[in-house]
Parts: sequence; C-alpha cells; structure tokens
Amino acid sequence: MTTVAEMLRTYPKDLGGVDREKLRDCIEACLDCSQTCTACADACLSEDMVAELTKCIRTCTDCADVCDTTGRVLSRHTGYDANLTRAVLEACAAACKACGDECAQHASMHEHCRVCSESCRRCEAACRELLAGLG
Amino acid sequence: MTTVAEMLRTYPKDLGGVDREKLRDCIEACLDCSQTCTACADACLSEDMVAELTKCIRTCTDCADVCDTTGRVLSRHTGYDANLTRAVLEACAAACKACGDECAQHASMHEHCRVCSESCRRCEAACRELLAGLG
Amino acid sequence: MTTVAEMLRTYPKDLGGVDREKLRDCIEACLDCSQTCTACADACLSEDMVAELTKCIRTCTDCADVCDTTGRVLSRHTGYDANLTRAVLEACAAACKACGDECAQHASMHEHCRVCSESCRRCEAACRELLAGLG
Amino acid sequence: MTTVAEMLRTYPKDLGGVDREKLRDCIEACLDCSQTCTACADACLSEDMVAELTKCIRTCTDCADVCDTTGRVLSRHTGYDANLTRAVLEACAAACKACGDECAQHASMHEHCRVCSESCRRCEAACRELLAGLG
Repeated sequence: MTTVAEMLRTYPKDLGGVDREKLRDCIEACLDCSQTCTACADACLSEDMVAELTKCIRTCTDCADVCDTTGRVLSRHTGYDANLTRAVLEACAAACKACGDECAQHASMHEHCRVCSESCRRCEAACRELLAGLG
Repeated sequence: MTTVAEMLRTYPKDLGGVDREKLRDCIEACLDCSQTCTACADACLSEDMVAELTKCIRTCTDCADVCDTTGRVLSRHTGYDANLTRAVLEACAAACKACGDECAQHASMHEHCRVCSESCRRCEAACRELLAGLG
Repeated sequence: MTTVAEMLRTYPKDLGGVDREKLRDCIEACLDCSQTCTACADACLSEDMVAELTKCIRTCTDCADVCDTTGRVLSRHTGYDANLTRAVLEACAAACKACGDECAQHASMHEHCRVCSESCRRCEAACRELLAGLG
Repeated sequence: MTTVAEMLRTYPKDLGGVDREKLRDCIEACLDCSQTCTACADACLSEDMVAELTKCIRTCTDCADVCDTTGRVLSRHTGYDANLTRAVLEACAAACKACGDECAQHASMHEHCRVCSESCRRCEAACRELLAGLG
C-alpha cells in the first residue's frame, strides 16, 4: 500500500461518494507525471539539438506545474468543491494531452521523451476516469 | 513599470495577438491572489474560531496553488498553446470564484478575509478578461 | 523500476559523481513527503480538535512546499550547482525534522500524523544521505 | 499599501519580534523574483542562441521554485519556527546569488537577463536583511 492510499484511509471524515481507487490512481499519476515532466524538460535542455526541443521544454514545464497543483487539490477533502475539482482535472487533462502529444513526436529519438509521453498518457487517462465518476 | 511588464517587453520573439496589458494585469493578479490566499489560510488558522473556518482554509490553500500555477503558465510564451491557456484560466477563475465567495462570508468579521475576497474578485475578473480576448 | 529511475537512466549527459541510487531515493522521498504533508494538513483540518493542531497544519504545509521544490531541484542536472543543491537539501532536512517531530507528538492519537511523521523521517534521512555524499 | 502589507496588518495574532517592513520587502522580492525567473527562463528558450543559455535556463527555473516556496513560508506566521525560516532564507539567498551571477553574464546581450539579474540581487539582499534580523 502506498502512502497515498494510507492517507486516504486515515482521513478522519467521510470522503463522499468518490471512487477511492480512482482517486488514488489519479493522485499517484499526477505526482509521477509532474516529476517526469520536470526531468524531461531538463533532459531536453541537455540535448545537443536543444534548439529543436524548445516547444517540448515549455510544454513539459507547464505540465509539471499543472500536475503538481492537481495532485495537491486532489489530496485535500475538507470542504470539497466539485466545480473546482472538475475545472482543475480538465486543465490537467489538457496539459497532459498537449505534453503527451509533443513528447510522442520525439519518442523515437529521445528515450526520456518516450518515458515522459507514457507518463502523460497515464495521467491524462486517470484524470478523465476521475472526471467521468464525478457525475 | 513593474517587472512583469518589463519581462513582457524584453521577450525576444513576437507575443502573438495577445492584449499585453490584460496579460500583465492577469499575471500580477495571480501573484497577488496566490500570496493573499496563502496568508489568509494562515490567518484563519490563528483565529480562535478556527473550527468554523476550515472550509475557508481549504479553499484559500487550493486557490493559492491554482493562482501560482496560472501565473507561471501565463509567464511563458514559447510554443504557446491556446487550449492549455484557456483550461488553466478557467480553473483559475473557478478557484477565485469559490474562494472569493467563501471569504466574502467572513469579511465582516475577519479583515484578512475581506482583503482576500477582494484579491480573488480581481483575479477572477482578470482571468475572465483574458479568456474573452483569447477568441 | 520507477519513473524516477528511468528518467535518471535516460538523461543524455553525464550525471557527475552523484550516487544515482541515493539521488533516486531522495527524489522519491521528497515526492512522497510532499503529498503526505499536504494530505496530513488537510486531515488535521477535518479533526474535531483542529484548534489543537494549528501548529501541525502549518508545519505540514511548509514541509509540503519545501519537499516539492527540493524534488524539482534534484530532478534537474543541467548546469549543476553543488552550493544550491546543498542549501536546498539543508532546508528540506530542517523542514522534515520540524514536521516529523510535530506529527510524532500526535501520532498516537491521529494515524495520519503517524504516517506523515514516518514519511518525514524517511525524507530527512534521504536528504542527509545525499548531503553526506556531496562532499 | 500593497496586499502583502495589508495581510501582515490583519494577521490576528502577534507577529513576534520580526521587522515587519523587512518581512514585507522580502515577501514582495520573492514573488517578483519567482515571476521574473520563470519569464527569463522562457525568454532564454526563445533566443536563437538557446544552446548557449542552457545553464541560465536551469538556474532561473530553480530560482523560480525556491523563491516561490520562500514567499509562501514567509507568508505564514502560525507556529513560527526560526530554524526552518533561517534554512529556507539561506537556500533562497543561494539560489538568487547563483541566478543573479549567471544572468549578469548575459545582461549586456539579453535585456531580460539584465532585468532578471537585478531582481535576483534585490531578493538576495532582502533575504540577507531578514536573516540578519532573525538573531
């Protein structure tokens, strides 16, 4: 059991109707994607062909920030606001879609972009799964 | 002229069709709102009646994170992606609306909530202004 | 193999003399501690005795921010600066020590504080391990 | 009066022996430096000679994150911990020194680096002023 699951289990009040497993998956995917995007932006910066990767660096940096904030918002349950959760998840799915698409274009040449693209796809899917369950 | 305006002026490439003044206003409003929300969550935490302010603390903490990320995304122009900018601005407007409403309920009793509510209103308006201009 | 390890493996240039395993452990500990502290601050906020947990909430919130930034700095290798890495790791160890001590005081009463305290201890240890190896 | 000053004024408990003006200056300098560094990293990314600015981009990105976290920690007063504040300010001064030095090397060629270097110098000085007063 990861710490994310343990923190969901030990939250002292009711978590509402949320699907606990999807919530855990989404928080973990956000953390993973944020770190991977931060590292991929930096790896791109160290490539000899950095001049051709500037859009990728920007998209990774944005995605890292958006996933970071989304993981934080999803880790809080007190005074839950479905509207805010929905808007944040939509923004996160958009950031992961943009970054996943961009990194996929460089995946055959740069392995860090392949790993990052896959992490973005997982996070986008986890956000959409959670969104679908918000009703 | 603030540093935000100076950084927009010295960006080496074209900024596209964006309204530079609205962009500057929105970045500044995000920075201000993020700091104010961080401080208001902490001020609520030091009130004797903290038990009645838990929803306010949560909403402020979320709003601080979302405004922070929005200010960062808006400060980048390389490889601009209108879809992502729009989704992030929508999330920021939602966070500021929720926090502005919540703090407004405590504004007559806690001056920090009044100041915070006004900062949230300004940031929500700035996000909507910028959104309207994105086409 | 976690994504953190994959991103270290696929970084295109030399990582210098750093102990790759300790670096991975520390990045993972920072991510875990940041999320756990965010969740613990929120769990404390939902406890009936929140008025007695205000210092804990503050310490958790600070620790979440410091671990977040530390995880980001450690995920970058381009233009490595040992002085900055050292100062950031010192701040992170201090934040984890403070939060681990504070949460330990509530661990017998609140399980989320026990989980959080353990996450802080692991992160503090990982920072000190990495610091010791920086020479 | 800025919002930072208003939030310090409306904090409901005693702020301790801190020099309120230096604290306000430092919080404002952290916000300004964080935004400026985020924008300078992006501006460097759009320069034709980006390959010669990779260290600058990395240093700016780190400095943005560290200043962001420092501004947050300084905006909280509940359960104040001088050790943590000191360690965070030391890390922030180190980040601003590194970034101010790096950007200064490009200041004559890139105006955004000049603006950023000056913002880093102001933030480093504000951190050191506050540190000196912590006793």
